[in-house]
Amino acid sequence: MLLEAVYHRPRLNWSYAYDRQTIHLRLRAKKGDLTEVFAWVGDKYAWDATKELIPMTLFTSDAMFDYWECESIPKLRRLKYGFLLQKGREQIWMTENGFVAERPANPLKLFEYPFLNPADVFTPPAWVKDAVFYQIFPERFANGDPSLNPEGVETWGGTPTPHNFFGGDLQGVIDHLDHLSELGITGIYFTPIFKGTTNHKYDTEDYMMVDPHFGDVQTLKRLVDACHERGIRVLLDAVFNHSGRTFAPFVDVLEKGEASLYKDWFHIREFPLQVTDNIPNYDSFAFEPLMPKLNTEHPEVKAYLLKVAEFWIKEVGLDGWRLDVADEVDHAFWRDFRKVVKAANPEAYILGEIWHESAPWLEGDQFDAVMNYPFTDAVLDFFVHGTVDAEGFSHAIGSQLARYPLQASEVAFNLLDSHDTPRVLTLAGGNKNRVKLAALFQFTFMGTPCIYYGGEIGMDGENDPGCRKCMEWDPAKQDRELFSYYQQLIRIRAEEPALRTGAITFLEAGPQGTKLAYERSLGDDVIMVLINTEETTQTFQLSVEEREWNNLFTGDTYRAERGRLSVKLPGYGYMVLKKV
Amino acid sequence: MLLEAVYHRPRLNWSYAYDRQTIHLRLRAKKGDLTEVFAWVGDKYAWDATKELIPMTLFTSDAMFDYWECESIPKLRRLKYGFLLQKGREQIWMTENGFVAERPANPLKLFEYPFLNPADVFTPPAWVKDAVFYQIFPERFANGDPSLNPEGVETWGGTPTPHNFFGGDLQGVIDHLDHLSELGITGIYFTPIFKGTTNHKYDTEDYMMVDPHFGDVQTLKRLVDACHERGIRVLLDAVFNHSGRTFAPFVDVLEKGEASLYKDWFHIREFPLQVTDNIPNYDSFAFEPLMPKLNTEHPEVKAYLLKVAEFWIKEVGLDGWRLDVADEVDHAFWRDFRKVVKAANPEAYILGEIWHESAPWLEGDQFDAVMNYPFTDAVLDFFVHGTVDAEGFSHAIGSQLARYPLQASEVAFNLLDSHDTPRVLTLAGGNKNRVKLAALFQFTFMGTPCIYYGGEIGMDGENDPGCRKCMEWDPAKQDRELFSYYQQLIRIRAEEPALRTGAITFLEAGPQGTKLAYERSLGDDVIMVLINTEETTQTFQLSVEEREWNNLFTGDTYRAERGRLSVKLPGYGYMVLKKV
Repeated sequence: MLLEAVYHRPRLNWSYAYDRQTIHLRLRAKKGDLTEVFAWVGDKYAWDATKELIPMTLFTSDAMFDYWECESIPKLRRLKYGFLLQKGREQIWMTENGFVAERPANPLKLFEYPFLNPADVFTPPAWVKDAVFYQIFPERFANGDPSLNPEGVETWGGTPTPHNFFGGDLQGVIDHLDHLSELGITGIYFTPIFKGTTNHKYDTEDYMMVDPHFGDVQTLKRLVDACHERGIRVLLDAVFNHSGRTFAPFVDVLEKGEASLYKDWFHIREFPLQVTDNIPNYDSFAFEPLMPKLNTEHPEVKAYLLKVAEFWIKEVGLDGWRLDVADEVDHAFWRDFRKVVKAANPEAYILGEIWHESAPWLEGDQFDAVMNYPFTDAVLDFFVHGTVDAEGFSHAIGSQLARYPLQASEVAFNLLDSHDTPRVLTLAGGNKNRVKLAALFQFTFMGTPCIYYGGEIGMDGENDPGCRKCMEWDPAKQDRELFSYYQQLIRIRAEEPALRTGAITFLEAGPQGTKLAYERSLGDDVIMVLINTEETTQTFQLSVEEREWNNLFTGDTYRAERGRLSVKLPGYGYMVLKKV
Repeated sequence: MLLEAVYHRPRLNWSYAYDRQTIHLRLRAKKGDLTEVFAWVGDKYAWDATKELIPMTLFTSDAMFDYWECESIPKLRRLKYGFLLQKGREQIWMTENGFVAERPANPLKLFEYPFLNPADVFTPPAWVKDAVFYQIFPERFANGDPSLNPEGVETWGGTPTPHNFFGGDLQGVIDHLDHLSELGITGIYFTPIFKGTTNHKYDTEDYMMVDPHFGDVQTLKRLVDACHERGIRVLLDAVFNHSGRTFAPFVDVLEKGEASLYKDWFHIREFPLQVTDNIPNYDSFAFEPLMPKLNTEHPEVKAYLLKVAEFWIKEVGLDGWRLDVADEVDHAFWRDFRKVVKAANPEAYILGEIWHESAPWLEGDQFDAVMNYPFTDAVLDFFVHGTVDAEGFSHAIGSQLARYPLQASEVAFNLLDSHDTPRVLTLAGGNKNRVKLAALFQFTFMGTPCIYYGGEIGMDGENDPGCRKCMEWDPAKQDRELFSYYQQLIRIRAEEPALRTGAITFLEAGPQGTKLAYERSLGDDVIMVLINTEETTQTFQLSVEEREWNNLFTGDTYRAERGRLSVKLPGYGYMVLKKV
């Protein structure tokens, strides 16, 4: 056994409460090294009467490691635990103090989950794992009220630049909700809608005012109400890391310098404020002078922003917040933010923008989920760029599953593209087949899928500003076949709980492989997904239960013969098969 | 390189803010495997202009691993980072996505410390790392006011049982503060003093009332004031995990059952309340019916206990709280507790009782320190029981240092014994030499040492009730030589900052070894501690700077010849040598 590779440490993804009764335990070991692993658990105050060995199962793997898992439901919510590792007949015990050859005589030096307190259980809103989101960049979705157009508005469908305007607004969204309902969307995430000077509104001027080019509070109320009537939840973008340059408190500091009552609302390194060689002498988002970083530790700033968070939930019935540049704001702020938001709406969803490892925000006291760009990367590498083989892809996914508690993976915000990336179709060099396979994985995997507006009808675009083109509303210019494909994905996902929260097992994911097959299982439901990422035909030979399998796209059935299912898939072919 | 052994994950002990400017980065590798390690750091928004390689140093080791460390002071408080690992001429880069052979072309897939927000910096009160604590069990320290004696009080110095009383009280402590000042104590931790039925008072009846057998609020005020005049801080015991059986709300539930307004203040599994086969049908500490677990998530309970925490700080000028059974209370409660306590007294010290790995409580949002029983175990195993050799001891210490951020190690509450353990002298079979060596390590190591009352004058005692004997006040029965030894330890520690916060390096800690030598260094100060745990003479041969070394106990000086210092130490001998 390679003991140096064995890892467990209480909390995070390693030992956590999945719900108010259940504790999950996980252990990492070198890939292929261990043959059996057991958790050795009990109540420390009644060890002899309660101690038991629980077999662990290998729940995922990555390039270097296997991850073993089990659950325990301790009667009195207290758990002391160690592990028994086996490799063939070789065995060793793992305690908090290290490895020992003999079963420890008592629980003293074992790991501990002292008490499962409900307040500490990471509990994202239940609806999120079943939702399908749609991201809207309001200036570019639809112009429903030309009377609100900014000065110098350009013709809908023109070339987007960093600074031009096309007149999209909230009425435009209201007008096109049928499009979303037809597609099957159950949630919208809007990039910012509060008053700002730019087309993206990430430079907030007034957090309490809908941007006049988008509408007003009444339009927003009508929009949210209309969404709710259709079973669509609404998420707005909370840009709390920084304000805009025209935010009144910052204007005051610009004008009055050190004499401003608001000087501590920001992080100002020296007065007077200035920008030298493109570097402001105050903290900002990146080095962007338009976006001065807010001092979220200042009691007044904090109180103001928390008020904003609460106000819009109560005022318009908001279903949650997406948090811009969430990782650069202090954790203390987000902890209070969660309290305020959940008090205002216990079902509210808190989604952070974090591009890297996010465990410090996903322990139950801060966010419900983060925008899952590591998922994006893995999917693009395999399905779109083809720079990673099927095995590498399965490892990337395995590594991500291992990194977080199960309830975090169940609501990971899984996207293929956004206003901050090139559109997936452009990355695929226009190959819609590749996009469809990427989306197939997105919709048949655990987590909340999100479609970036227009992706469903074949819009393309390079990185900002290209990815922020006007939505195409001319049906003749929309890819309606792609639209109906997305409809099917959403329908199948909605009908099959196993696709949302079932366990995943890779059945085919080999080195140099361009064939991918995986199983999602939940209770008695078993669904297999087969994907050929090659442009030529490939044959899948899978060991499966001797059953009939139903193709959820076509309704065709297949029978596994002698425990094997042999399926020939044409180039870019796919199948989603459910055990009958 | 054994890559399976290499470990880093953002946060906890691996990447953390040490202060408002400085980020510490650490990496684990197989022991002896790597020859050089570098952190590769920069600002992600200005990578090319800021990126740099920072050499890491091997700061500690344990049985299986080396731990490398460096610090970085990012100008704009944002840090993107990876690592470069070298073994001779072999090298590899570590990113958040795994290991890569080539230097990554950009910072995208590196680890990240997004922004150093002051609110998130773990900052224990500065005074704690310089303090020397003394733990008092009030019922057994001194009887200063016999008029308060409980009924049936026994003669001072009698045999302690789980239930008898000897009449110790707060006036007794006031009367004996000279003893503590003479010793050099700067902090007292009192086990509970609020009204309860037992001699230990861990079954609180009234959190707002000093136990009448101990005194009243006026006595407590006089005690705290008298301590403060002497530069002694005072910590009380907050028993918030559970109340006593006679706590009015619990009495109400016992009487009224489900009709009680307080039924949700506890965790009651079924009504009416009863105890069957020694197991109560309500949650309690362990299975102790006298100690019903409080529902600290209930808003009224939480508000009440937080009020208690604040009240005593403000009412008597308390310097902090020790938290009983802290790990079984919800984290959400402790986060709010910290806010309330620090608002009432920003210098207040929050010390949790946790016996196992405590990282989840030591991230800055909850406790300042925990009672460091893993330290106790390591010290006892080597100095007292002799069950671990010098190498194993150095590994146990190394493992503990690696486990926490530096600021946590600086204030770890390092004890040899307490009211919950046998006294160290008893564990040592009466061998005072061994106790002295254990204490020498305790006082020449990082962390806040605490003496359990009477340890300084040679009191012994088995586990509870034996360890809760009456304090011996007859000078003829006190070991005054041991007392003056402790005085010296405290004086030397007070005079030498390097002994409090200097880095530790083991110079002599071999397999089967009973000789231990280590260095503590801080700036230009270097102090060496040499300890012979054998009962026979042993010679130390140390490679040291060619300097004079001053024995801090005796004032003798020693000169290192040709880079070597040769010292012969008699059985149980020791030296603390400072570079002149």
